[in-house]
Amino acid sequence: MRQSIYSQKNNNFDSVKKMYYRFSDKWCYTRHERRIVMTNTVITTRLEELRKAMKAHGVEYYYITTGDYHCSEYVSDFFKSREYFCGFTGSNGDLLVSQDWAGLWTDGRYFVQAEKELEGTGVTLYRMAQENVPTLNEYLKDHIKAGETLAFDGMTVEAGKGLQMAKTVAKKDGKVQYDLDLSKEVWTDRPALPCNPVWLLKEENCGRTAEEKLALVRDKMKEADAAYLLLSKLDDLMWLLNIRGNDVECNPVAMSYGFITMDDVYLFIQEAEITAEAKAYFEKKNIQIRSYQDVTAFLKAYDFRGAVMLDEENISYGLYQLAKEKAQVVEKANPTEWYKAVKTPREMEQIRDIYLEDSAAVCKFIYWLKNHIGKEEITEYSAAMKMDSFREKIHDFVELSFPTISAYQENAAMMHYEATETDFKVLEPKGMLLVDSGGTYHRGTTDVTRTIVIGEISDTMKEHYSKTVAGMLQLADTTFLYGCGGINLDIMARQPLWDLGIDYKCGTGHGIGFVLNVHEGPQSIRPRLLSKKDTPLEEGMIVSDEPGVYIQGSHGIRIENILEVKKAMHNGDGQFMKFEHLTYAPIDLEAIDKKYLREEDVRRLNAYHADVYAKISPYLDEEERIWLKEATKAI
Amino acid sequence: MRQSIYSQKNNNFDSVKKMYYRFSDKWCYTRHERRIVMTNTVITTRLEELRKAMKAHGVEYYYITTGDYHCSEYVSDFFKSREYFCGFTGSNGDLLVSQDWAGLWTDGRYFVQAEKELEGTGVTLYRMAQENVPTLNEYLKDHIKAGETLAFDGMTVEAGKGLQMAKTVAKKDGKVQYDLDLSKEVWTDRPALPCNPVWLLKEENCGRTAEEKLALVRDKMKEADAAYLLLSKLDDLMWLLNIRGNDVECNPVAMSYGFITMDDVYLFIQEAEITAEAKAYFEKKNIQIRSYQDVTAFLKAYDFRGAVMLDEENISYGLYQLAKEKAQVVEKANPTEWYKAVKTPREMEQIRDIYLEDSAAVCKFIYWLKNHIGKEEITEYSAAMKMDSFREKIHDFVELSFPTISAYQENAAMMHYEATETDFKVLEPKGMLLVDSGGTYHRGTTDVTRTIVIGEISDTMKEHYSKTVAGMLQLADTTFLYGCGGINLDIMARQPLWDLGIDYKCGTGHGIGFVLNVHEGPQSIRPRLLSKKDTPLEEGMIVSDEPGVYIQGSHGIRIENILEVKKAMHNGDGQFMKFEHLTYAPIDLEAIDKKYLREEDVRRLNAYHADVYAKISPYLDEEERIWLKEATKAI
Repeated sequence: MRQSIYSQKNNNFDSVKKMYYRFSDKWCYTRHERRIVMTNTVITTRLEELRKAMKAHGVEYYYITTGDYHCSEYVSDFFKSREYFCGFTGSNGDLLVSQDWAGLWTDGRYFVQAEKELEGTGVTLYRMAQENVPTLNEYLKDHIKAGETLAFDGMTVEAGKGLQMAKTVAKKDGKVQYDLDLSKEVWTDRPALPCNPVWLLKEENCGRTAEEKLALVRDKMKEADAAYLLLSKLDDLMWLLNIRGNDVECNPVAMSYGFITMDDVYLFIQEAEITAEAKAYFEKKNIQIRSYQDVTAFLKAYDFRGAVMLDEENISYGLYQLAKEKAQVVEKANPTEWYKAVKTPREMEQIRDIYLEDSAAVCKFIYWLKNHIGKEEITEYSAAMKMDSFREKIHDFVELSFPTISAYQENAAMMHYEATETDFKVLEPKGMLLVDSGGTYHRGTTDVTRTIVIGEISDTMKEHYSKTVAGMLQLADTTFLYGCGGINLDIMARQPLWDLGIDYKCGTGHGIGFVLNVHEGPQSIRPRLLSKKDTPLEEGMIVSDEPGVYIQGSHGIRIENILEVKKAMHNGDGQFMKFEHLTYAPIDLEAIDKKYLREEDVRRLNAYHADVYAKISPYLDEEERIWLKEATKAI
Repeated sequence: MRQSIYSQKNNNFDSVKKMYYRFSDKWCYTRHERRIVMTNTVITTRLEELRKAMKAHGVEYYYITTGDYHCSEYVSDFFKSREYFCGFTGSNGDLLVSQDWAGLWTDGRYFVQAEKELEGTGVTLYRMAQENVPTLNEYLKDHIKAGETLAFDGMTVEAGKGLQMAKTVAKKDGKVQYDLDLSKEVWTDRPALPCNPVWLLKEENCGRTAEEKLALVRDKMKEADAAYLLLSKLDDLMWLLNIRGNDVECNPVAMSYGFITMDDVYLFIQEAEITAEAKAYFEKKNIQIRSYQDVTAFLKAYDFRGAVMLDEENISYGLYQLAKEKAQVVEKANPTEWYKAVKTPREMEQIRDIYLEDSAAVCKFIYWLKNHIGKEEITEYSAAMKMDSFREKIHDFVELSFPTISAYQENAAMMHYEATETDFKVLEPKGMLLVDSGGTYHRGTTDVTRTIVIGEISDTMKEHYSKTVAGMLQLADTTFLYGCGGINLDIMARQPLWDLGIDYKCGTGHGIGFVLNVHEGPQSIRPRLLSKKDTPLEEGMIVSDEPGVYIQGSHGIRIENILEVKKAMHNGDGQFMKFEHLTYAPIDLEAIDKKYLREEDVRRLNAYHADVYAKISPYLDEEERIWLKEATKAI
């Protein structure tokens, strides 16, 4: 009874029907039974303006991705053009606009959220990696016609993506214009570029001086026959020079570029970001400062006498094209990336330490929540604030490592749902609250998720919860041969859920920075490769282990521990590797039913809980300690 | 006391010591305590002749691989130059020879065997994929000097390998000569090229006519914008045309090339192979016959009017270079390969059927062995003959699908050990016999391994056996999301062994042909990719599942079942997949100790054994049936 959905109250039925039939995105509307779809006039107006500008420039397709000038995952407001033009606020999304159509591509973490946010905008949602859903390139290939132009701001598009689109468009005899930033013209109240002071990481806390890091990197440059390294990835540059910034929410990075030669280091950064302390440091370290805006002019004028190394996956298409014009290019992953991922023993020492304190903050929060639910009003938002307040009390706290996710019941089915001060659910004494949170401290960066029972839950939820826990603990308990990467290991977390016919539409694990970004590579744990090659897990890498169950409209469960990679036995068969937990927070026994666990799952859970109590109880007060004893009892 | 090994009896101590110090292959000799290393004069003489010929041709490095003109895994005697010049008989090995050195590269299946066979030849063994062992290309890169020449017979070298070597050599300003077959000059009693009659597969048994297969392949050619397909891989061509041959031991293939255009099919084959029946078939199917020897002349003269598709990994370097000179080349996996791997429903029907009968033959053999051991003399070789005799009784038996491996005690630690009529161990009523065997029938090709207890075994052996079984059954019981390839699944078989710090140095699983080669791609189950991309497992693929433990000098265990890939549940999260056993032969309970099994391992073993009895008992006589009941009882 498809028509009946709109027949009574919808004051905008015609346009909806038109969209409905034109784009055949049937699924989207049939699911919204009895809900009224209003036109989102804010977005449609902005798209209208954009289309006018496209016409004026003779452009048939305009592409906006989620990118700053540095291929960062999270970007400052200045770069949120994609959000401005379609309303979707997730951290990953590609918008393609033509005169009579617009499409947004995003990944499984955001399907539910995107569906909601795109409502009434006329923008069609394309669910990445789902059966029968074309990729953006496939869409372009099928629709762009000879002579038509695809335009975008090449400085905000990753080189790999740009190259692929250019290839697709060229095949159809189309044109690419990559220096067109239409946001400049259409987005009148666009925020300013962020500009905040940089700060210095103490050398004794990194375990390696900038000089030592530069020496490692230059060795890799020589190995690759490169005379120069062009670094655009912000956390790589922060790591290399032992500096930090504050230009992206929750990421302690400064907007900057690095150009490394065998003798010199050039840092392109906004002058206003340089404190007196930083100035002295740069001088002492012989780091030459240039204006942030001058990077392209500098490269254009530079007298290249050798090949320049750059990472196609971590540089903008604009900069990539410029480098190609000027010099021979060696395309390699930034050598900084691998070194950054393998923590030094000094870093690991501090990381182990801060993870205990951070886990204790999570324990305190869980205890507080369980004891206050039903007694006072708690909302998703106030719960997040409470979680943050426990973290802020830790003495070397710098900032949150990402905005705390506090998602109640069906909201937890949206992987990266964010409650706000004005848009939240009130918690009732039933169901579960998912809290995914972390902090940046001087001792490291944390990330942890617990799903907490705050009232009655169904047997199905218990099954999903138990299997999620089984997967998390199974991966953490895996011994593997050196050389394995995440593609080999992912199934260890997923298998208990796959047995039920459940799959979470995201990776299982990501690396985490040291006083840096909460997501970093090159290692990851996922079934499919993101880059050309999987990276073997090395001793000193840390990686998240976060299986989950996301049932749209019902509930979401995620249990995330951070694991340290360590060496296990070495013998004639090779070097074996293992994980050790860094996170020690209880797993909610109220959501566990032993009938859903295998013998070994129970053994692992009990062993983990014994460790949680032993390691965390010293950080708790008496009441909390008594509660934790019970919460971690053997089952 | 390293020196003492050679001080007393070795009449060739000086040369051994020289080798020992020059190549630092210390490990090789320290392990052979008290064993005398004699010079293998047969091989050293042959190498001397080869080196003379190299000098005459001005060649510093000569490379011989294990290849026929078609990149076949197993090759006929004509192509066994590598074996001729170094004595190593394994199915995979690369020999590189210079004036004062020779090296052989082989993989983990053959480490023990190669060590033994190379003894006294002066050829250094390079263990592939082991820590600190250079690859052949790395060796070349480190040793070849500017102006030096690497030569080989390009028609026997895979294009990918040839290209890589050419690149390495070019980097060092060396030269490559790829049309030099020195075996022609040096190997005076070289056997003739095989030439045996082809035979026809009944169309009703394949489930697809040659015309239907050609239509599928031509669609893939069009998709890739290719006008021609050059097919060199023998089993692909046999599959495409529904023919079989007899030119390679145990592989029912005929030496041939195929050249497919949009309208024509050219088959290059030795005239003497064409029977009257085959001639009529080729005429009826409009397949144009050309002489096998004329393939290069034909391609040189052909008027190419479009791109030619070929598979760089399945064509010789010689033919690849010729195609490159003549036409634009589209490098893609042979489209035949994927279609061949996904069996038709008609093929699967017959495969399921023949696997039951073949499994029954294995049961009969195990019963016979357990009842005759200690009562009469049984050798590895006579046991193999007995196994073969049970298989030969099956009515549509064609030939063995590979020479039966029958390996007792420490011989089983050599993955592909082959006892012969003159070189075998006598079985005693103790330890275990590993039997890896299979047959080609008109209903399909089989492959199965069982390790059979024939007397007392140690607790360690029981642990290894139990964990091997746990791994085999765990992989078979895995539910996975569609899209997974072997690289995602391999750990399911390996994990119980990795927990013990044991790794088997080979893949876990391979595809198997239908009345064709016992090893086929593109799917495989292994931790590292062999080709550029992993192939998702599809319904209708069949794959082996064969974990093992190989303890040099002590024992070897391998348990191999063949699995069928099937669809499992389909829901909003996607299409899930599962395996089903095709092999039903008992797993030796005498080698199982429950203390080494998890609850779920026991459950899986009992369920599997119940199926074995239900499915196989109808094929057995009364005595065998009573035994099988006991051998498959629940534990």
